[in-house]
Amino acid sequence: MTEQQVTAGMLAIGDELLSGRTKDRNIGFLAEMLTAAGIDLLEVRIVADDETAIVEALNALRARYTYVFTSGGIGPTHDDITADAVATAFGVACEHDAKAMKLLGDHYAGRDMEFTEARKRMARMPVGAVHIDNPVSKAPGFIIGNVHVMAGVPSVFQAMVNQVIGTLKTGARLHSDSVVCPHGEGDIGGPLGEIQKNHRDVVIGSYPRFDGRKFSTEIVMRSRDEGAIAAAKSDVEAMIAAIAAR
Amino acid sequence: MTEQQVTAGMLAIGDELLSGRTKDRNIGFLAEMLTAAGIDLLEVRIVADDETAIVEALNALRARYTYVFTSGGIGPTHDDITADAVATAFGVACEHDAKAMKLLGDHYAGRDMEFTEARKRMARMPVGAVHIDNPVSKAPGFIIGNVHVMAGVPSVFQAMVNQVIGTLKTGARLHSDSVVCPHGEGDIGGPLGEIQKNHRDVVIGSYPRFDGRKFSTEIVMRSRDEGAIAAAKSDVEAMIAAIAAR
Repeated sequence: MTEQQVTAGMLAIGDELLSGRTKDRNIGFLAEMLTAAGIDLLEVRIVADDETAIVEALNALRARYTYVFTSGGIGPTHDDITADAVATAFGVACEHDAKAMKLLGDHYAGRDMEFTEARKRMARMPVGAVHIDNPVSKAPGFIIGNVHVMAGVPSVFQAMVNQVIGTLKTGARLHSDSVVCPHGEGDIGGPLGEIQKNHRDVVIGSYPRFDGRKFSTEIVMRSRDEGAIAAAKSDVEAMIAAIAAR
Repeated sequence: MTEQQVTAGMLAIGDELLSGRTKDRNIGFLAEMLTAAGIDLLEVRIVADDETAIVEALNALRARYTYVFTSGGIGPTHDDITADAVATAFGVACEHDAKAMKLLGDHYAGRDMEFTEARKRMARMPVGAVHIDNPVSKAPGFIIGNVHVMAGVPSVFQAMVNQVIGTLKTGARLHSDSVVCPHGEGDIGGPLGEIQKNHRDVVIGSYPRFDGRKFSTEIVMRSRDEGAIAAAKSDVEAMIAAIAAR
């Protein structure tokens, strides 16, 4: 880990992700946003709406990474237990937050909707938490320590990520370039491994594609040094030309 | 955990999933297949192509769940390190497997393709592992202990899951039913929580939907007892009717 590396873990929470009923759309979105910001997402976990599982995963991730981002479980129903679990993980109480109560109370009053006990649940957060605004549907996410707690509904999750991304300490931007290679990994694996050895400051990834009949490969080069990427790319292109000339 | 519960964890491996470059499509597929088989997927982790990260996550998951399924990192290139990492996790050597060498050697000979060192990497597996057939592109996955190691390319991953699913010990089938509710979670959260309290053998999940203007809710009831689901559903429908009659 270099001095300028900023790291992140994500915890996606919800029975529906593990049953296959809902296909997660938040992991890929957060991954792209963090990558663009120069923050390295190093681990994702998905757990059920289960307090023990959430607390354990959250404590593991928050100890290990600069930032942790959670999705899901902050709605008004009985199975939304993320706020309580986060409070437990931090060893603080989970209470109705005065600012959130006012925000939501005004919101529902203005729409002639009853501020039910269920809706009041959405104002509960660990003591000491700071709001993440929710421009979509009002009920805020929150930040406590290095943990950012956000909604699971993708439109709300994305709006919350957009709120927080500018507030994060970011690392040096990770650049990338790629080359589409018409050969399968079996043809290029040997020489590509040699290229990786000669370009230690570039992470070279090889991603097979299969169209039902034939494999091809996308070769991706990632580095914080654009010159190093260009040098590796030149060697990759020479390798592809050499295979074509066989 | 009941006597008949069979549990699973999944480990998705690959830098590309964490950078956002590739959106995972295997987690949702496996989740659906396991749910249909009566196996409860309780945790998913995504880690990079990093031996330490893979070993640690795999050892945590395989100690905790009946089965573990991995995706990714078993191709022919230098960044495919899953077989080595799994061997390390189990404390055994990773070697070219004789049966896999013959299978792949014959395969490439029959297609007039060179059996390169890179392709031979795909025959490497932990000593003692048993093959998972790959009807798509030949290179096998493998099983060691309770861990099933499969490819990351979705078409190959799916074919491998189809190979193994019938070999697994399965739990009692988890049934589910759902009710679409035109009210948001804020309106139903209170009474729905009461219904959950009255139906302890049914897990009631509430999934908000937002169409850009209005929230609605899908209420999902899951249980191994179909009669219990029917009873809970009846109460949920009565709740929705009562809200509509207000």
